[in-house]
Amino acid sequence: MRQSTLIFHTRKEAPKDEVAVNAQLLIRAGFIDKLMAGVYTYLPLGLLVLKKIETIIRTEMRAIGGQEILMPVLHPKALWEKTGRWSTLESLFKFKGLNSEIEFALGPTHEEVITPLVQGENLSYKDLPVYLFQIQDKFRDEVRAKSGLLRGREFIMKDLYSFHATEEDLNTYYEKVRGAYETIFKKAGIGDMTYFTFASGGTFSTYSHEFQTLSESGEDTIYVCESCRVAVNREIIAEQRACPECGSEDLKERNAIEVGNIFKLKTKYSSAFRLGYKDKDGSEKMVVMGCYGIGLSRLMGTVVEVSHDEDGIIWPLSLAPASLHLLSIGAESEGLKKTAERVYNGLVKEGIETLFDDRMDVSAGEKFSDSDLIGIPYRIVVSEKLLKEGNVEVRDRKTKTVEIVKEADLVPFLKKTFLSS
Amino acid sequence: MRQSTLIFHTRKEAPKDEVAVNAQLLIRAGFIDKLMAGVYTYLPLGLLVLKKIETIIRTEMRAIGGQEILMPVLHPKALWEKTGRWSTLESLFKFKGLNSEIEFALGPTHEEVITPLVQGENLSYKDLPVYLFQIQDKFRDEVRAKSGLLRGREFIMKDLYSFHATEEDLNTYYEKVRGAYETIFKKAGIGDMTYFTFASGGTFSTYSHEFQTLSESGEDTIYVCESCRVAVNREIIAEQRACPECGSEDLKERNAIEVGNIFKLKTKYSSAFRLGYKDKDGSEKMVVMGCYGIGLSRLMGTVVEVSHDEDGIIWPLSLAPASLHLLSIGAESEGLKKTAERVYNGLVKEGIETLFDDRMDVSAGEKFSDSDLIGIPYRIVVSEKLLKEGNVEVRDRKTKTVEIVKEADLVPFLKKTFLSS
Repeated sequence: MRQSTLIFHTRKEAPKDEVAVNAQLLIRAGFIDKLMAGVYTYLPLGLLVLKKIETIIRTEMRAIGGQEILMPVLHPKALWEKTGRWSTLESLFKFKGLNSEIEFALGPTHEEVITPLVQGENLSYKDLPVYLFQIQDKFRDEVRAKSGLLRGREFIMKDLYSFHATEEDLNTYYEKVRGAYETIFKKAGIGDMTYFTFASGGTFSTYSHEFQTLSESGEDTIYVCESCRVAVNREIIAEQRACPECGSEDLKERNAIEVGNIFKLKTKYSSAFRLGYKDKDGSEKMVVMGCYGIGLSRLMGTVVEVSHDEDGIIWPLSLAPASLHLLSIGAESEGLKKTAERVYNGLVKEGIETLFDDRMDVSAGEKFSDSDLIGIPYRIVVSEKLLKEGNVEVRDRKTKTVEIVKEADLVPFLKKTFLSS
Repeated sequence: MRQSTLIFHTRKEAPKDEVAVNAQLLIRAGFIDKLMAGVYTYLPLGLLVLKKIETIIRTEMRAIGGQEILMPVLHPKALWEKTGRWSTLESLFKFKGLNSEIEFALGPTHEEVITPLVQGENLSYKDLPVYLFQIQDKFRDEVRAKSGLLRGREFIMKDLYSFHATEEDLNTYYEKVRGAYETIFKKAGIGDMTYFTFASGGTFSTYSHEFQTLSESGEDTIYVCESCRVAVNREIIAEQRACPECGSEDLKERNAIEVGNIFKLKTKYSSAFRLGYKDKDGSEKMVVMGCYGIGLSRLMGTVVEVSHDEDGIIWPLSLAPASLHLLSIGAESEGLKKTAERVYNGLVKEGIETLFDDRMDVSAGEKFSDSDLIGIPYRIVVSEKLLKEGNVEVRDRKTKTVEIVKEADLVPFLKKTFLSS
């Protein structure tokens, strides 16, 4: 990908009304654009990151048997009235069509759609369990939306719903999803700082867990047991000041961001929509449900919150818009141009994703600071000075360590040192 | 993909209020589910088709230099007021947030978002041309929505926008997009029956063209010049009863479905949002724009409208949820089961996408009629009778021709006969 073809440039300043670090950096680096509070456009670099997150999540959802579907954004009022949430869910966007004369909600979650959808199939015990997921836009009518990608009025979520004959079966699958979520957060580079949290508050206190990533900009406070790698959230601590796994009372208070949640819905929604199944003995029983969410856009924002420095974003290799940022620096001689093109083509040929800063009218300083801001994991510099010795420079964005490598040895060096993991 | 794992079964009847053939067949075959008029869920098989359409379109958009972005569904009122379309576009969904106290539109198209987005980059002549596209949900507040996937209240579109320094450059790119669209419709199996149509009606009469696919269920009437492979639509015919390419007056009246449109917007939107660029001589000039749409969901519906028979859908290989439908038929002996599994695993190993009807409690007749309804291009039957001779049966869904092939020869036969194109 040639940087000269990218229309969306880096910026020195984020919009004045943007207070969240994740949005400030992502806007300045040209990954997203703010349309209004809590509503963003994904620009080419940002969409590349989003697609990588999507692929990681989709892979793990398929690995635990998830079948992908795509449900609508527009929901009819009648379904939300059945569960009572038309009037109780404060953040629900509700409106009436002028022509269609129907009242709609914009989906903030999809229990009200998926439960009657599955109900239409007249299940028998043989059909269960069933696991269905989607990756879709979601909407919340937030009073204020000041946290960038962490809390949008419009955001992108993966929601998985599971349908079981028994609570035991739900419990078994719930643990499987927990494992898949741990893999996803590990792959996204935040495994170390993400805790499985015993949740509370709201309707599902006893049946729900969250995944919380430690960050100073998080909205939640959790209490972490370092030895067990689990946490409890603020509401639980009032009742029971101890680790739910080992009983330790040595819990550390931390700010955290909720990056995922898993709920045992049990028969709450299947009862509302009469979603039953015919059991072996011919009797009708209620289906037992679970639901499991990860915000893709929130995960993107979280990674930026926990992985940046004063110069910009530091992407993990798994989510970066490219693995390498190749910079052609200094007087634009024909020799240098040729070398830079040769290096670029060599990398492309090897299938190594490379952003090539081939811009002609940009100073070295600007290229360096743009590269730090954009935050691609490894920077390769080609310059007149290095060229004389047949060398290129390789720099690690995170550790800032620099190595000088012979141009001919570059690809094997990268594969051995950086890209093997 | 094992059919026994698919929860969404085929149906004998579509919903009574569903009059469109495309929706009737897609619902009966388990590709989509109707949530309300003009709003559908894509089930696993339907989403597979949608993803294939998406890949075809994305490939061709990239081939003509398109960079992918993703713009929001929620638009602020202010932008739609700038172009006047807040009050003039009748099908615009408009509403006020209860908490956010802002008025929103749901995007039916994105000129009001992309023009100020690009305007923010302070373009110079060096930045142009720019080509940006997205694949995103769109919304129209339709009075009635009775045409299934052909006219949804919620639908999925690819919209490409181009930005140029001059009208000449727009004209050149416009022809490139025309070529890309022809490739897309050819790949989607409707190239032969899709015509480049000189459009009229509405604001852009002189500057717009449509791609119209001949179908009895289309909403449009076009006049086709068979020799030139172009058409004109009903409004133009009143003024000028002749082929715009060859001047022939021998035009045939036909019903057609609009599957794509291309517009020369010129400076309509750049003027509204003061989207200029700095030219070589330092002067400020208006950017010249084009926009180009294809409805992915409408394309899916169109293919079903023009490619089905009394038994069900007939997918082109390029869009089918799988290339082969493998049916295990008759008494479920251990020998038959083993053979069917062996054939299935052999096909999967070869990377041939196969839907395997491994259901145990379903009659042969039901499997055959389900297979015709679902419409995968090639059906492979494994039965006790065939097994005795070491044979399998291969049937072409479209021509209904049947061939008996030795099991050992199946993969080479398929590759040679069907899957090579």
